[in-house]
Amino acid sequence: MTINLGNFMNTQALKSKMQDFQDLEHIDGVSISTVCANLYSKPRDDLVMFYFRDGANYASVYTQSKIVSENIKWNLGIKCKKIKSLLINTRNANAFTGPEGYKALKEIAEEISIQLSKKQNEDEDHPKKILGNEILFGCTGTIGEKYPTEKIKKNIPELIKKIKYTQNKLIWMKAALGIMTTDLKPKLTMEECKIGNKKIKIYGIAKGSGMIFPNMATTLGYIFTDADLSNDILSKLLKKNIDTTFNAITCDGDTSTNDMVSIFSTGKIKNSMINNINDKRMKSFDKALHSVLLNLSKKIVADGEGATKFITINVIKSKSDNDAKKIAFSIANSNLVKTAIAGEDPNWGRIIMAIGKSGININLDKLSINFSNIKIIEKGKIFKNYKESEVANYMKGSAIDISINLNLGTKNFTAYTMDLTKKYIEINADYRS
Amino acid sequence: MTINLGNFMNTQALKSKMQDFQDLEHIDGVSISTVCANLYSKPRDDLVMFYFRDGANYASVYTQSKIVSENIKWNLGIKCKKIKSLLINTRNANAFTGPEGYKALKEIAEEISIQLSKKQNEDEDHPKKILGNEILFGCTGTIGEKYPTEKIKKNIPELIKKIKYTQNKLIWMKAALGIMTTDLKPKLTMEECKIGNKKIKIYGIAKGSGMIFPNMATTLGYIFTDADLSNDILSKLLKKNIDTTFNAITCDGDTSTNDMVSIFSTGKIKNSMINNINDKRMKSFDKALHSVLLNLSKKIVADGEGATKFITINVIKSKSDNDAKKIAFSIANSNLVKTAIAGEDPNWGRIIMAIGKSGININLDKLSINFSNIKIIEKGKIFKNYKESEVANYMKGSAIDISINLNLGTKNFTAYTMDLTKKYIEINADYRS
Repeated sequence: MTINLGNFMNTQALKSKMQDFQDLEHIDGVSISTVCANLYSKPRDDLVMFYFRDGANYASVYTQSKIVSENIKWNLGIKCKKIKSLLINTRNANAFTGPEGYKALKEIAEEISIQLSKKQNEDEDHPKKILGNEILFGCTGTIGEKYPTEKIKKNIPELIKKIKYTQNKLIWMKAALGIMTTDLKPKLTMEECKIGNKKIKIYGIAKGSGMIFPNMATTLGYIFTDADLSNDILSKLLKKNIDTTFNAITCDGDTSTNDMVSIFSTGKIKNSMINNINDKRMKSFDKALHSVLLNLSKKIVADGEGATKFITINVIKSKSDNDAKKIAFSIANSNLVKTAIAGEDPNWGRIIMAIGKSGININLDKLSINFSNIKIIEKGKIFKNYKESEVANYMKGSAIDISINLNLGTKNFTAYTMDLTKKYIEINADYRS
Repeated sequence: MTINLGNFMNTQALKSKMQDFQDLEHIDGVSISTVCANLYSKPRDDLVMFYFRDGANYASVYTQSKIVSENIKWNLGIKCKKIKSLLINTRNANAFTGPEGYKALKEIAEEISIQLSKKQNEDEDHPKKILGNEILFGCTGTIGEKYPTEKIKKNIPELIKKIKYTQNKLIWMKAALGIMTTDLKPKLTMEECKIGNKKIKIYGIAKGSGMIFPNMATTLGYIFTDADLSNDILSKLLKKNIDTTFNAITCDGDTSTNDMVSIFSTGKIKNSMINNINDKRMKSFDKALHSVLLNLSKKIVADGEGATKFITINVIKSKSDNDAKKIAFSIANSNLVKTAIAGEDPNWGRIIMAIGKSGININLDKLSINFSNIKIIEKGKIFKNYKESEVANYMKGSAIDISINLNLGTKNFTAYTMDLTKKYIEINADYRS
């Protein structure tokens, strides 16, 4: 299950599609609730709770940063078999808050434990006590500021009171809006697939738009399915698909302390037992999961700070995956490439520069470069019919596909990014609340 | 001979000093000549020749890029003991020009060989034939364009005719101006020192201002001394001092195909024979060379595209040089850090982010961060008397010194960069000739 690199994606069509939201409806075993805890000076929903009344199997991937937020530390310590709740707050990243920040989560988890256990007692025939260490946290916002423990704690009863057992598109939209920081658009997507003959839903929401004012953008991605899959299978599926989706996007090369992508399966659909992610019955699910992750990733890039163009960089026929990835990101993270694209300037020399500085050995005589289907370099030489005006015209579009053919092997990698504009500087330099 | 990291440099004073040019005068054994070969549409000197009538010992360091220009390939092939001439052209990088670009240099070298040999016959008592493979080339400008062989070749006689054996500040300035591309200011510097009791001059010129319109900026640095030092000693001295000078600066993290720093010693001052760079008699020269290289490097950063602030990043008390360097460059290359500084925003959270994403293990409880002498983080905690307004006020200055104390070891590294402004985007996105 990799992206079809031979056929450049029609990102133009994709972008216009991304303007629209997919309507997410009910998914069995997931409840959502949002409140305004006044974490911002201007009221908005800033606390989002996911509640799995019968628990959910789960897996997560976290930031590669050597400095991680307190909630990531908390999540890494969670060893329970099933997760009961996920609480996400915006405005404060709970990073660089030290032991106090961690203690805050413990207090909040205890409050959630008490309130959700109470709810179980009221609503369930066989109520289960919900423990603090069955709760995950997502945090995003400013780092280094005191974590608003009391404001959050005091809103937990209200958050739980609002929980309904049937979800509709409105509550999903509220959840997607509730986890945003400076994102301009909520990010939601869904796929339907099958495991064996059972129909399965995969829903996802995400936030992120480059690294963000006032401190940093966190990428958060949460995937929900009604399939019945073990933690081990979820973990393997997530790891397998994250490299070509959430780990294939870059806005400015900066990495948050708080990045987190999780998948939850409620097991409400009793599909056959799956022990191996390569099981043929998993093909449809695997593809749909990749699609959900990729769609969310692309939405993040398309909403990148100051972005006017969506850039796809395909590195093909590389000796190794790693070589392809390094070259793709060397281009995707180059300010010079990204400003040239912002300026609609067919300045392919900067792409050559970015390939060179990647440190990967290439054979210049075999290198070919295309912009969409326009040939620029063919086997190390400027294409005989190369017309700068043709490329310049192509670059006026809002989706730019760049293809680097190394002609050295069989491995491919695609990275996604956006252009670098004055608006990015404005957002990151000129404004501060 | 390292930079004094305990004492933050007064970059403010330095910057104002950099506005002034140092006057370079005569240096024995070096001749300079410049012409306009009409490589630009608007006439300006674009060809600069250095001629060493008795040859010069030399050493060079080149770009680390995996794609190098034809002149770098040429230079790497030069094995002669003494260099007779260095020719630098602007406007065309002779990169991605293939075998034709290389052949062009051969033709030009032959023409220089003929013309300079003629000059030797006319001027010298013991004339020596000057060979094509005793000539080095520096090229900077657009890549992928046909190299202007004929224009350059045809101007060689004029270039050589203009050679004078006594140099003055005017011709040095012309040389510094003649190698510029989009630099706003010429870059010249000098130091005087001693080897034993002999007075020695070290002169240097450079160009570079970030990666440059229309394709990429090349960093060129040329150092000249009248000392008598072997190729081996020159090479060791250059390598020793380049890491903390030319390799300690970054404008946008992009790397040219054409970078080149060379040192030439004419041997006109008969200092004692030096076999070891750690020889006590070399201390003064070593220090002066470092100073010349550092001064030129800082001038490049200060002239960085769109720069309004000069940023010094000191990483101190690191376990290893490499750790310190990685953290320093992770901060120096972060768009978010650089836009925050452009916006005069004391957004130290972004520095934490950049430290984290460097991938280097640190101990957060030991980390201290200062802006100049203003404490921000002390041993992992926000400094008790931290006042954002104080830092905000400091950031209004044009030189920002950031110090990261890891408190883990004894190694230090200082990187130099500038802020990221809308002007950078304008230069790199909006203009094209």
